[in-house]
Amino acid sequence: MDHETRNNPVTLLDVAREAGVSPSTVSRILNGTAKVSADKRKAVETAIAEMHFEPNQLAQNLKKGCSMTIGIVVQDIASPFFAETLRGVDDGLKGTGYASVIVSGHWNAQEETDRVKLLLARKVDGMILLSGRIEDSAVLNFAKQRPIVATGRALQSDTAIGFKLDNEYGALLAVRHLIDMGHRRIAFVAGPADNADSCERLAGYQRALAEANLEFDPNLVVEGDLHEASGLVAINHLFETRQQFSAVFAINDQTAYGVRLSLYRKGIRVPDDISLIGFDDLPSSLYTTPPLTTIHQPLYDMGLVATTALLGLISGKKVDVTIPSLELIVRETTRRFR
Amino acid sequence: MDHETRNNPVTLLDVAREAGVSPSTVSRILNGTAKVSADKRKAVETAIAEMHFEPNQLAQNLKKGCSMTIGIVVQDIASPFFAETLRGVDDGLKGTGYASVIVSGHWNAQEETDRVKLLLARKVDGMILLSGRIEDSAVLNFAKQRPIVATGRALQSDTAIGFKLDNEYGALLAVRHLIDMGHRRIAFVAGPADNADSCERLAGYQRALAEANLEFDPNLVVEGDLHEASGLVAINHLFETRQQFSAVFAINDQTAYGVRLSLYRKGIRVPDDISLIGFDDLPSSLYTTPPLTTIHQPLYDMGLVATTALLGLISGKKVDVTIPSLELIVRETTRRFR
Repeated sequence: MDHETRNNPVTLLDVAREAGVSPSTVSRILNGTAKVSADKRKAVETAIAEMHFEPNQLAQNLKKGCSMTIGIVVQDIASPFFAETLRGVDDGLKGTGYASVIVSGHWNAQEETDRVKLLLARKVDGMILLSGRIEDSAVLNFAKQRPIVATGRALQSDTAIGFKLDNEYGALLAVRHLIDMGHRRIAFVAGPADNADSCERLAGYQRALAEANLEFDPNLVVEGDLHEASGLVAINHLFETRQQFSAVFAINDQTAYGVRLSLYRKGIRVPDDISLIGFDDLPSSLYTTPPLTTIHQPLYDMGLVATTALLGLISGKKVDVTIPSLELIVRETTRRFR
Repeated sequence: MDHETRNNPVTLLDVAREAGVSPSTVSRILNGTAKVSADKRKAVETAIAEMHFEPNQLAQNLKKGCSMTIGIVVQDIASPFFAETLRGVDDGLKGTGYASVIVSGHWNAQEETDRVKLLLARKVDGMILLSGRIEDSAVLNFAKQRPIVATGRALQSDTAIGFKLDNEYGALLAVRHLIDMGHRRIAFVAGPADNADSCERLAGYQRALAEANLEFDPNLVVEGDLHEASGLVAINHLFETRQQFSAVFAINDQTAYGVRLSLYRKGIRVPDDISLIGFDDLPSSLYTTPPLTTIHQPLYDMGLVATTALLGLISGKKVDVTIPSLELIVRETTRRFR
């Protein structure tokens, strides 16, 4: 076979065939993550050299009219929540030749719309919308121009896919865990009343109480703003109003960090005196003192899955989106009530 | 009509009504393409002044051939270090009509070069490079096409500005603080040996010891990788090799979080048994248990200043870059040696 006279670009699949290995083996060798035998590695390296395989498809795809760029719309570029999903996007693009450009909508529907238009004007090949405030109908409309994958909303069309996690179920897991440990008076530091995630998690909190025949006490629910300081303020408020509770469910890990500091300031031990559970499983929750029990949101996987789905839509393939479900991660901030 | 009590932003239509002219007349006056009577012009200009009307610069600048987009090159999109600087960039662009697009170089000089070229191909009006591995000469070359502001390097040309913080001074402040508190055996969890910031901070650590006539003990310096887990591993190593120390200086806050967890695991109290100081002052360091003493890097300000400087370069103004210097922030992880 004369590789010099090929008209079509050599693909990873061609290399795999030539080397007699699976495509994923080639991919792993290219990404440097491979644990493969010396024989296979040699065969792949030989095939790459002989076939003049260029793993970076950029030039080839640019010729086909693709910009080889995908646009990502986040809401807050400084949030660890989005950072973790962006890490998944980043890894999803590795070795594909695609670059990402990231813009922020700042939780503002108008700004978000402007940014999507900016990306379209810049001829991105597709977009990933991470959360956001624009209407589903607007997303579907934009998707007529370029494929879109959106998180935090349920959508399905030929050019748009949206998926969301089950917040109520996550909250149910969290509060059930506390109830299983014997806690009966469980405070909930919620998010803003107009935040959909927060309403769903409140529903999960109430459902878990109802399951256990525990009465819902609105005095134990304090509204926060999803940031650390509001967790601290919420706990101070509960103490000032003399509420009795042995456990706290925080709407997210960042809020839990503020709760933790408030308790530390008051000389209350976690988990010996009060148990604490968060929601998100941010990477930093592995390193709080003590490490935080929380609900794992597959933030990284969401980024990875969204990216794979978008690349599928772009290449016109059938796309099947499966994301891992929410999961209780028991670390060291919860213990049996005594 | 009382303009002060208006709740909604003043629009071009409001100006037209107030001046008693058509909206298109206002538009032509704003764009400088108007051939209108002196009377009408006067009426419009009076209305604009009285109503504090801020014409949207976006459309006008687009007409002038600007893309009204600036490109930001970071190295790790999921790092809280870059997130804080991006927050400064974000705020620096507020109200300017400019949008930012963010790309990642992944600490890889080739990828960084590719991303800069991508941004240039997308016709950004200027770029901000946050840290990075490409040569200064390459930065200066790219800056011939579009203005560049870079952090982590000292540069100055007509179209490029670079500025860096004094790492050695920051480390000096940190270690001096520990020495002032009576500590004599101070461990240093460093970064990778080929990391310039780490080398400069090691120099500051050594300088502080020398100032106090304390001997430098290489056994007290352990190399980490700037992430949490390496702080934990480093402390475990110091204990396994039976080093004596009463304080730890961690190369950055993330490393300090790992150090903290390792000490918690061993039942060693912070700061009662061992003092701990970080470097960066990440937002989350306000919420560690207890809150972390650290060196404040003006990460947010760097983003803000870089943005202002870039907008200055783009509009051809003289640019003066002043960033606040590094600062010791004493919180609750350091105390007097006893």
